Amino acid sequence: MTDPEVQRTPRVGVLAIVGVGLIGGSFAAALRQAGVVDKVLGVGRSPGPLALAKRLGLIDEVATLAQAAAQADLVFLAAPVGAFPALLAGLLPTLRPQAIITDAGSTKADVVQAAYQALGDRVSQFIPGHPIAGAERTGPEAADAQLYRGRNVILTPLPENTPQDRQWLTQLWEHCGARVLSMGAAEHDTVLASVSHVPHFLASVFMAQVAAADDADLRLNLAGTGFRDFTRIAAGSPEMWRDIFLANRQAVLAEVAQVRDVLAQAEEALAAGDGVKLFDLLERAALARRFWGSRSGLS
Amino acid sequence: MTDPEVQRTPRVGVLAIVGVGLIGGSFAAALRQAGVVDKVLGVGRSPGPLALAKRLGLIDEVATLAQAAAQADLVFLAAPVGAFPALLAGLLPTLRPQAIITDAGSTKADVVQAAYQALGDRVSQFIPGHPIAGAERTGPEAADAQLYRGRNVILTPLPENTPQDRQWLTQLWEHCGARVLSMGAAEHDTVLASVSHVPHFLASVFMAQVAAADDADLRLNLAGTGFRDFTRIAAGSPEMWRDIFLANRQAVLAEVAQVRDVLAQAEEALAAGDGVKLFDLLERAALARRFWGSRSGLS
Repeated sequence: MTDPEVQRTPRVGVLAIVGVGLIGGSFAAALRQAGVVDKVLGVGRSPGPLALAKRLGLIDEVATLAQAAAQADLVFLAAPVGAFPALLAGLLPTLRPQAIITDAGSTKADVVQAAYQALGDRVSQFIPGHPIAGAERTGPEAADAQLYRGRNVILTPLPENTPQDRQWLTQLWEHCGARVLSMGAAEHDTVLASVSHVPHFLASVFMAQVAAADDADLRLNLAGTGFRDFTRIAAGSPEMWRDIFLANRQAVLAEVAQVRDVLAQAEEALAAGDGVKLFDLLERAALARRFWGSRSGLS
Repeated sequence: MTDPEVQRTPRVGVLAIVGVGLIGGSFAAALRQAGVVDKVLGVGRSPGPLALAKRLGLIDEVATLAQAAAQADLVFLAAPVGAFPALLAGLLPTLRPQAIITDAGSTKADVVQAAYQALGDRVSQFIPGHPIAGAERTGPEAADAQLYRGRNVILTPLPENTPQDRQWLTQLWEHCGARVLSMGAAEHDTVLASVSHVPHFLASVFMAQVAAADDADLRLNLAGTGFRDFTRIAAGSPEMWRDIFLANRQAVLAEVAQVRDVLAQAEEALAAGDGVKLFDLLERAALARRFWGSRSGLS
């Protein structure tokens, strides 16, 4: 991908999507809609989603990892990060010398480590990435060419990546309508622990606590829209989220500990009947959330 | 309201709404749409919302508490529960002998206590209630005749209430499209602590923790739809929620303590890298949330 022509007009001859669900399928659909991809291969564990992805026109052909590596200009890993070591090892033997691999993994330090281990001196062909886009819906049927429009995509490039390759991938994401940011893998993991992983951790803990109550049926029967919103993320894939928590363990534990400190302060204020302290905390939270809501374009 | 004719065809000659925001305005709008109310009076602290409610046709006239009590067949308290003692005391001197007062307060044990103290031997005229309906939007402009359609309304009747009055109020709520349930005030407060108050407590604590971080701007810039849903309730009125937490302090603290126990187990599993335990918790939460989502009609 060091040809300056390719850089100026970012195109993908053959795109291989490993994991043709919401994230992978939407990437393929967005690049197709932008008219910058010629052919899309789909790679996956189970035949059902692959067949559906083909029927939906998200992919042109089903391929094995080795077949995909032998043909693809760009390989997009949209599988659980726990599978990355095996996937990278499976791609390496037939990987084309100019091909780029990128990913959609929710954690980056572990993915970077896996890439160095699996790819060795060809790690320059791997550019780590993370599109921040909703995933309540799953599967190829949820794929949407508009999914990344206005959303942030974080790249955590390696020193080995060439500026040309980084720019090419950046432009492809911009063709999907995304805003691309670069930062270090460790910084990414700390920030995402805070605004993505900890909310999921807390929502799951809370949901498990409610479901374990003796009167869980009554509670759930009387739960309203606040409960609905607060717990929505807890419905996410247990497998995927277990992998995320384990992969980003230190950062998640550090953030949870800080949340526990604030929780202890709030409990203390409530136990003491201290309305002033309680109001102060609630007001800080409400103002921050309203300010975010007015700026984020998400609420 | 003991006339059997009235019971069979529930009507309200004069309805007084104390607090003409989303909750009060929607109750008036729903009863008007059902064609069961003749005249609506609006009572409030500030002239702005009252004038707007009149312009929107939610109320016919603005009234003082004493004027409302002298005319109303039904008084609906949709103000913060902290104001109830003063409101009930203000209604009592001119309250018509057959009038019913009900409310929309999010806590019930404290409201019941306030009613006994303020109304004395006329407490039979107060039927405590709590419509469980969303309140992200506020003010008369958010009022919606459909707000209560398919939603639960909990009544926590007093032994002093007559069966006729309870049935009359039940039928009025049913005219708003609501499903009416009856339970004890203490049971209501425990259940609501769990599925409403604790989520708000946790969302506010989390939001305050994120907003206090040195890199809060970066975090909030990268927050996505999961963060949006998880924190939405934290934008709610600090004044209203302070009152709710203080009013339901014991039940909220007891539930928060139980959530902290589950949180400690989850942290322990994560710290130990115990993927099996972590998966088990996440799966229990995900299955419970998905089951709820499929039944609740809310998601």
